[in-house]
Order: sequence, then structure tokens, then C-alpha cells
Amino acid sequence: MSLEIERKFLVRGEFSKNVTEATEIVQGYLSSSPGRTVRVRIRGEKGYITVKGKAGESGIDRFEWEKEIPVDDARELLKLCEPYPVEKTRYLVPSGAHLFEVDVFHGENSGLVMAEIELGSADEAFEKPPWLGEEVSGDPRFYNSSLSAKPFSCW
Amino acid sequence: MSLEIERKFLVRGEFSKNVTEATEIVQGYLSSSPGRTVRVRIRGEKGYITVKGKAGESGIDRFEWEKEIPVDDARELLKLCEPYPVEKTRYLVPSGAHLFEVDVFHGENSGLVMAEIELGSADEAFEKPPWLGEEVSGDPRFYNSSLSAKPFSCW
Repeated sequence: MSLEIERKFLVRGEFSKNVTEATEIVQGYLSSSPGRTVRVRIRGEKGYITVKGKAGESGIDRFEWEKEIPVDDARELLKLCEPYPVEKTRYLVPSGAHLFEVDVFHGENSGLVMAEIELGSADEAFEKPPWLGEEVSGDPRFYNSSLSAKPFSCW
Repeated sequence: MSLEIERKFLVRGEFSKNVTEATEIVQGYLSSSPGRTVRVRIRGEKGYITVKGKAGESGIDRFEWEKEIPVDDARELLKLCEPYPVEKTRYLVPSGAHLFEVDVFHGENSGLVMAEIELGSADEAFEKPPWLGEEVSGDPRFYNSSLSAKPFSCW
């Protein structure tokens, strides 16, 4: 249980030089209601169920609760999820004192690349790498739950 | 993860003579969508998150996945749930080779008393105690998720 403070950006250049890790992620939504999102995720060989609350006014802070579950359970739960699953490769990219998670989306969301950074507070400073584009933290279209219901290719 | 086979009845008489256990239950719904219900429950001092799939044609069988979670987490998650929480006292009532769970609802659902029996198959025979009323297995109004959104007192 935590209050998650995250900022989210489009990626507008070559980020791959500093990648330290890549993991495949498939996730679906049992609920994509903004105040009570329920996500089922398979990340590598692990399963998770995650509940997110409403974003704060800034769009940056959000209640988050996550629990690891058996990956076979996650596979069964994914079958119940709303169409469509979101598929992406997540790259970890250290930058100064921080760590960016860069998501390269596949399938219906191909063409979309986003970077997220987790911060200790909403106004914490961080180094901006040259490939970091426009901030989209407050824009609900870029929620992964929105990308499930209305993928990037349909915009 | 299991396929739950349950039949549900109204209670039309005095069942309390054979009660072996009583527990307070509070539950809410992160999703009340019939194909992907997500329930948060506090039962006595324990917390649970439960996902239920669509009911089969009979209204009797339904996919169910449940995980115990810390009760403090359940309290936090209840705050995110749709209005309103469902409150009830659950009584266990053995009857022949089976066990009835009799739910006496409180709050907005006061006046409603329902009994559920879990069976090995949809056509398994069981002894009907004298207090067992009309069957409501297939009726979505009596889903607890419906009783959350549209309580008995509003019918």
C-alpha cells in the first residue's frame, strides 16, 4: 500500500544505449474505472494483481496496492479482463540518481514509447536525458487502462 | 481458482436453532461488472480479495479466485470501492451432509435473509430444511454486487 508519485513522458529519441534490463509485460484490466482500477499483470515469469485509486489533481500521485500472485492464476484472471490486453517491453534506464522505466508498446499500441520516473515528492528535481519528450502525466489517454480500452492505433 | 457451484435461497422461517458459528462480514466492490466482479471482504479479522467470472447459463456455476490479504489492506481497499458496502452476519447451519451459509443483511439491505449451499455438481441432491424458501440462484438482483449498487431497501 503506498502513494505512488510518478511522472510520465513520451520518448522522442534513442534511449537504448543505457538499458540495463528488459522484461516482457502483459497486462489486462478487471476494472478500468479511474477511481478503482484493477490490473492483472504478468511481468517476466511473475504474476501480480494491482489496485490503483484516483489520481490527485496534479495527475502525479495515486494510491497503489499490489500483491504478487501465482503466474498461473494471473493467466486465468487475464482471460476475464476487459478487451484488450496491453503488451509491452519494459526497459530499465538509469539516469543520474534516478531510474527511468521505458515502455515500448506492441500490438494495438505499437508506435507508442513512454518513460516513467518514480519520485519521492511531486516537485523532486531529476536529470532529463536527451531522448525525453513531452510530459503526459496528467493525460488520461496515456493511462495503460485507457490504452487497453482505446489503443494508440485507434486514436 | 475454482468453479464454484452454489444454490441460493430466500429464508422464510426460524433457522437459528442449528447455528454453529456466526461471523460479521463487510464487503465492497471494486468492480461489479457481472463478467469480472472484484470483491474486497473483511470476514471476522481476515481480509480477502476475490474475483468472480460470469455465471453459467444455470446461474449456479461461476469461476472464482480468492486470495487472503492483510486486514489493514482490505480496510484501505474498501475505501476505494463503489458505494455502498454490504454488511451482513453469516451463520453456519449444518443440514444433513451439507452446510448452509445463512446471511442476515444489515444497513440498506436490512430485511433480506438468504441461504447458500455449495454443491459438488449442479444436480446434487440435498436435504431442504423447513425454513428454506424460494430459490433465487439465477436472479441477478440477489447478487451481493447488485445489493451493493441497489440495496434491498430501494426495491
